[in-house]
Amino acid sequence: MAGGQQAEKYIIAPDSFKGTLHSEEICQILAQVIRKHKPCAEIVSVPIADGGEGTVDALLSAVGGRKVSLPVKGPLMETVDGFYGILPDGKTAVIEMAACAGLPLVGRRKAVERTTTYGVGQLMRDAVDRGCTKLIIGLGGSATNDMGAGAAAAMGARFLDVEGTSFVPVGETLAKVCQIDTSALRHSLAGVEIIAMCDIDNPLYGENGAAYVFAPQKGANADMVALLDDGLRALSAIVTRELDIDVAALPGAGAAGGMGGGLVAFFVAQMKKGIETMLDAVCFDTLLDSATLVITGEGRIDTQSLSGKVVVGVARRAMRKGVPVVALVGDIGDDIEAIYDEGVLAILSINRVAVSLSKARKRSGQDLALTMDTLMRLMALAR
Amino acid sequence: MAGGQQAEKYIIAPDSFKGTLHSEEICQILAQVIRKHKPCAEIVSVPIADGGEGTVDALLSAVGGRKVSLPVKGPLMETVDGFYGILPDGKTAVIEMAACAGLPLVGRRKAVERTTTYGVGQLMRDAVDRGCTKLIIGLGGSATNDMGAGAAAAMGARFLDVEGTSFVPVGETLAKVCQIDTSALRHSLAGVEIIAMCDIDNPLYGENGAAYVFAPQKGANADMVALLDDGLRALSAIVTRELDIDVAALPGAGAAGGMGGGLVAFFVAQMKKGIETMLDAVCFDTLLDSATLVITGEGRIDTQSLSGKVVVGVARRAMRKGVPVVALVGDIGDDIEAIYDEGVLAILSINRVAVSLSKARKRSGQDLALTMDTLMRLMALAR
Repeated sequence: MAGGQQAEKYIIAPDSFKGTLHSEEICQILAQVIRKHKPCAEIVSVPIADGGEGTVDALLSAVGGRKVSLPVKGPLMETVDGFYGILPDGKTAVIEMAACAGLPLVGRRKAVERTTTYGVGQLMRDAVDRGCTKLIIGLGGSATNDMGAGAAAAMGARFLDVEGTSFVPVGETLAKVCQIDTSALRHSLAGVEIIAMCDIDNPLYGENGAAYVFAPQKGANADMVALLDDGLRALSAIVTRELDIDVAALPGAGAAGGMGGGLVAFFVAQMKKGIETMLDAVCFDTLLDSATLVITGEGRIDTQSLSGKVVVGVARRAMRKGVPVVALVGDIGDDIEAIYDEGVLAILSINRVAVSLSKARKRSGQDLALTMDTLMRLMALAR
Repeated sequence: MAGGQQAEKYIIAPDSFKGTLHSEEICQILAQVIRKHKPCAEIVSVPIADGGEGTVDALLSAVGGRKVSLPVKGPLMETVDGFYGILPDGKTAVIEMAACAGLPLVGRRKAVERTTTYGVGQLMRDAVDRGCTKLIIGLGGSATNDMGAGAAAAMGARFLDVEGTSFVPVGETLAKVCQIDTSALRHSLAGVEIIAMCDIDNPLYGENGAAYVFAPQKGANADMVALLDDGLRALSAIVTRELDIDVAALPGAGAAGGMGGGLVAFFVAQMKKGIETMLDAVCFDTLLDSATLVITGEGRIDTQSLSGKVVVGVARRAMRKGVPVVALVGDIGDDIEAIYDEGVLAILSINRVAVSLSKARKRSGQDLALTMDTLMRLMALAR
């Protein structure tokens, strides 16, 4: 466009292939193949994470920055090694709640009625104390169902019971909250923007809510699910009365054991799709300037990929800048024409032999590299 | 190259995907997709056959011409509906021996010791009588082991036994030949060029010869194989003595029950790879002039594809003319780098989901179309 010979610029922005390849591995594999064909090309790797485990590492690997480690409370109030990232601007912190409230941390001791997000609040406080004015909170992989009350308490919110005694609510005690005082929390967070990365639309409670949909995989039986759901419903009512905000039906309020709703209610957070958050954090629109090609991908592309998934999220932005996008994926589902309309030029499956998924998984890294090689070869074709 | 805007020209020259898609079906599917993306493009379809069943139809569909039908002798000397093709030049006949000496014609009556290629000679004679001066004979799918003696007899050759009586030798009577007179045959074929399409390298007899390698699938047991091998060996010695030519060790002499060797010995035929014969017959080198892209393919590409197979045969010619070649294939084997060196720009597998071959086969037509669609989309990428 600018006239004259410019170095080619390739942007690699893939999702992970769930259960097969991490997005950072994918970036490394693809970069190596591009380098082989185009030794002088500029290659920008943006491994995409969804807010769950690995989100901090993915963002730091994409834009640099540093990792801060500190001891915080784990999901059962034990001490764990917590961490978060501070991006190169020194102002933006990235926190994944899985780091201190994640399901792997409870191991076999699953007790979703007693787990807390307290440590998440400690990480947030540390970031604010270090001067961060923007906190990105990745929701995902949580072991909790406390509506983020633990995190709020760690940041100074006070939850009072019927006797006026302050306590840190957990799933089984949410209904005991009678009064909420967020003045200290609001004071600490003055001027701080908080983004909740969230890709699900579930409301806070009810049959599609946090407890009914997600608590069983956190160890809750049917009675416990009902108790947790009642707790979310009760606290939501108190929130509406005390804080003048109703998050019950907010899409995503039910994410991460209600932490989605809690971040909005207690922290005045904005909800944002994971992919949009990631792309904004890496200044993707600026990266696209003068790019030759964007390579994205996910484990399977299908009609569901149209809603908030990585490939389409990446393609929409690239289309606005006129940069072609090719997706490398595991499987390609049927009826994917609509995905082309979103800015994806072409989709290549990495499958090279007719074998079942269990066999295909074992060769996926190599197949991905060979498929990228094919793409680079095809780029030699004239328009 | 010529400067100025020319209509794009696509050449489709695929092998069949054995057991899955015929080469003519593949041509139709690919042409339809190209047409969708490039309504004004010139599309040339050259379905490739290997000399076996379907060779006449493939060639006629590629270049036009007409099919001649006539009653001839079948493999068991019964009468069958024979046919061959005459290309538009009116001078070139294409005969597939499977048409009158093919294994399907004997059904369950397999009797390789008694089957004959007599009908093939009748087809050849008819073509010569109609003024053809070039006969292309597709070897493949035969039910015979007569070293082409039947065909030679039909064209006027005389095979004499120890008593000087003329007879038509079959597998079990080859050793009875004591003398051969090809003068009438040579006279009929004066000025006629004969090409034997042959992709195998087996010698006439011995452990890698026609009888040991191919007769079992034509119904011979171990004793019969030994008898047939002895017959080929004996006739070969007579041929050497009488006709002053030794075809015993000639690569391809063992093709089609020794018909390869017989065509060379009795008919002074040239042996030629199937793919080279096909490409010459369609004037492939001329077709390549000003072509945008050649699309070829086969069911599986692997290191074996380097020897006489379709993709590499097509690519070598296209490379000489500087036309890029993309191969669409079922499976891609390992270590195929050497295939790129032969002029194949890129290889795309049609596999889009990780499923076994039995499942993949059922969707192969659709998957092929979608893969061609992807290729056309990628051609929009700038160099």
